[in-house]
Amino acid sequence: MQRNGPGELMVPDFLGPEHADFSRAIAYVDGEFVPLLDARISVRDFGLTHADQTYDVLHVWNGGFFRLDDHMNRFARSLAGMRLDPGLSRAQQVAILEECVRRTGLRYALVYWACTRGAPPLGGRDPTVCRNTFLCYAQPLVLRGSPEQMRRGLAVQISPTVRRIPSDSLNPRWKNVHWGDFTRALFDAKDAGFDSTVLLDHAGNVTEGPGFNVLAVVRGELVAPAEGVLEGISALTMMELATELGLPARFGVLSPEDLRNADEAFITSTSCGLFPITRVDDRILSNGAPGPLSVRLLNTYYQRKNDGWHITPIRYE
Amino acid sequence: MQRNGPGELMVPDFLGPEHADFSRAIAYVDGEFVPLLDARISVRDFGLTHADQTYDVLHVWNGGFFRLDDHMNRFARSLAGMRLDPGLSRAQQVAILEECVRRTGLRYALVYWACTRGAPPLGGRDPTVCRNTFLCYAQPLVLRGSPEQMRRGLAVQISPTVRRIPSDSLNPRWKNVHWGDFTRALFDAKDAGFDSTVLLDHAGNVTEGPGFNVLAVVRGELVAPAEGVLEGISALTMMELATELGLPARFGVLSPEDLRNADEAFITSTSCGLFPITRVDDRILSNGAPGPLSVRLLNTYYQRKNDGWHITPIRYE
Repeated sequence: MQRNGPGELMVPDFLGPEHADFSRAIAYVDGEFVPLLDARISVRDFGLTHADQTYDVLHVWNGGFFRLDDHMNRFARSLAGMRLDPGLSRAQQVAILEECVRRTGLRYALVYWACTRGAPPLGGRDPTVCRNTFLCYAQPLVLRGSPEQMRRGLAVQISPTVRRIPSDSLNPRWKNVHWGDFTRALFDAKDAGFDSTVLLDHAGNVTEGPGFNVLAVVRGELVAPAEGVLEGISALTMMELATELGLPARFGVLSPEDLRNADEAFITSTSCGLFPITRVDDRILSNGAPGPLSVRLLNTYYQRKNDGWHITPIRYE
Repeated sequence: MQRNGPGELMVPDFLGPEHADFSRAIAYVDGEFVPLLDARISVRDFGLTHADQTYDVLHVWNGGFFRLDDHMNRFARSLAGMRLDPGLSRAQQVAILEECVRRTGLRYALVYWACTRGAPPLGGRDPTVCRNTFLCYAQPLVLRGSPEQMRRGLAVQISPTVRRIPSDSLNPRWKNVHWGDFTRALFDAKDAGFDSTVLLDHAGNVTEGPGFNVLAVVRGELVAPAEGVLEGISALTMMELATELGLPARFGVLSPEDLRNADEAFITSTSCGLFPITRVDDRILSNGAPGPLSVRLLNTYYQRKNDGWHITPIRYE
């Protein structure tokens, strides 16, 4: 853990890609544990051919799952909403996650798991008769950016053309792989020199970006979009920590003007906790550096996790 | 080919699932030809984890590709739109399709091919740096329904709740696997006793269903939705044949009322050419049997294909 004195970002620089050994990553697929880099699924699975699947991602911190129950609860809601059933109890699912991590031996890991619709009967096309599958993998935890990138922050473009897939087409609370809108906007943003993108909904309000929620400090309040977004567990964590730190925090509507004029803003994701946004379109936020609340939140997040907050220890032996 | 005299549907009953031997199906994946039932792709491929891929499907009729150029043109447009590049020329792609079919030995086949984004660098998440993949498979052609089902026709529900993903979120002309809206509506429709579903756009007009276009005869004209739908090649075929048969045919707006009150209606898809719709919500169409134009179009479609229309012969040896 790189420490920089009060007011500076604490960044765990031991979690950079240069320290990650992906040959240790382990997957569970078709009922077997295999090296992640060998893990494959059938090209006939509707999870691939119809994006018909749900998934979730959590991380292992210092030998324990972070917010395991919250992730398993969300996964269960996604399964129910999308009418998927892996045929495994929650305890069985958790046991597979744990076994994947145990086999890697990693004390800092990213764990991904999914339930896909499965392959239809030969010659068939009916998703209601498929046998759903469960897959999982654990790999080294690699943070979203280096310490330098984190101190520089993200430049994000609010997509001028692509709108988030609306809730009456696909419920964003069911964690899904329908990223076509994100991907299209991300290519555009990178063309224009940005690091990432944030999408508006059809009413013109801020939703989310590719794999992250967006939070902003607007007129002294931390605001997270309430509708049309995934119920991000890292976002929830930051909202809870903000409240504990005495900052008003609420789920509501975030307009693009609010985001462009925010005192500070950040994305939240399992891959980073939070990551500062220092530019939105042509506007520089918080003088081009992580804002003071972002720094306090992230440092508190690391301290609390190091203290075992929301951590479910893994039995490695 | 079952023949039933003039005015009756000609249905090739030799293409039922009971005649299909899927052990003959061949896939091309990771640069190798393998049995389809063994073909798998990496669980790290963004094609799986972000639905980041495009695909196309054509059929082989009597030893030749049907409308090969139209399918390859559409695939090229999808690739360009989604900024995918399999690193293969069009001639190389066609050669792979042909080799898959040749290895099956099938003279009636369904050919599916896709370009996926590929897996990101280990620990990475940037789709712009992925090496895109090309996969393909050929399997026995199995028609969408049995002759009896075809004569009975489809009962479709216009989804009362789910709207088609709009074009400003995802361009439906780029053939994509974002089927979450279809899948959700299909489960609802099956719950309510229907065979399938048709989705409206956010303006309330008819778009398409899971894997098919929808066409209807409205006030003496064959109408196909012009916007917010895949440019279906089977739909185009039926529009062309209708014109040849002297029936006015146009791409335009199809309202749900038009569809419910249509003289007759059908879906179009590579898996069937056309398939009659005989019920929409609580309305029976064309007396619950395939309408006369549907019958003429489908019979003409088979006759023309048998005569080699739009067929590119495959070199089996």
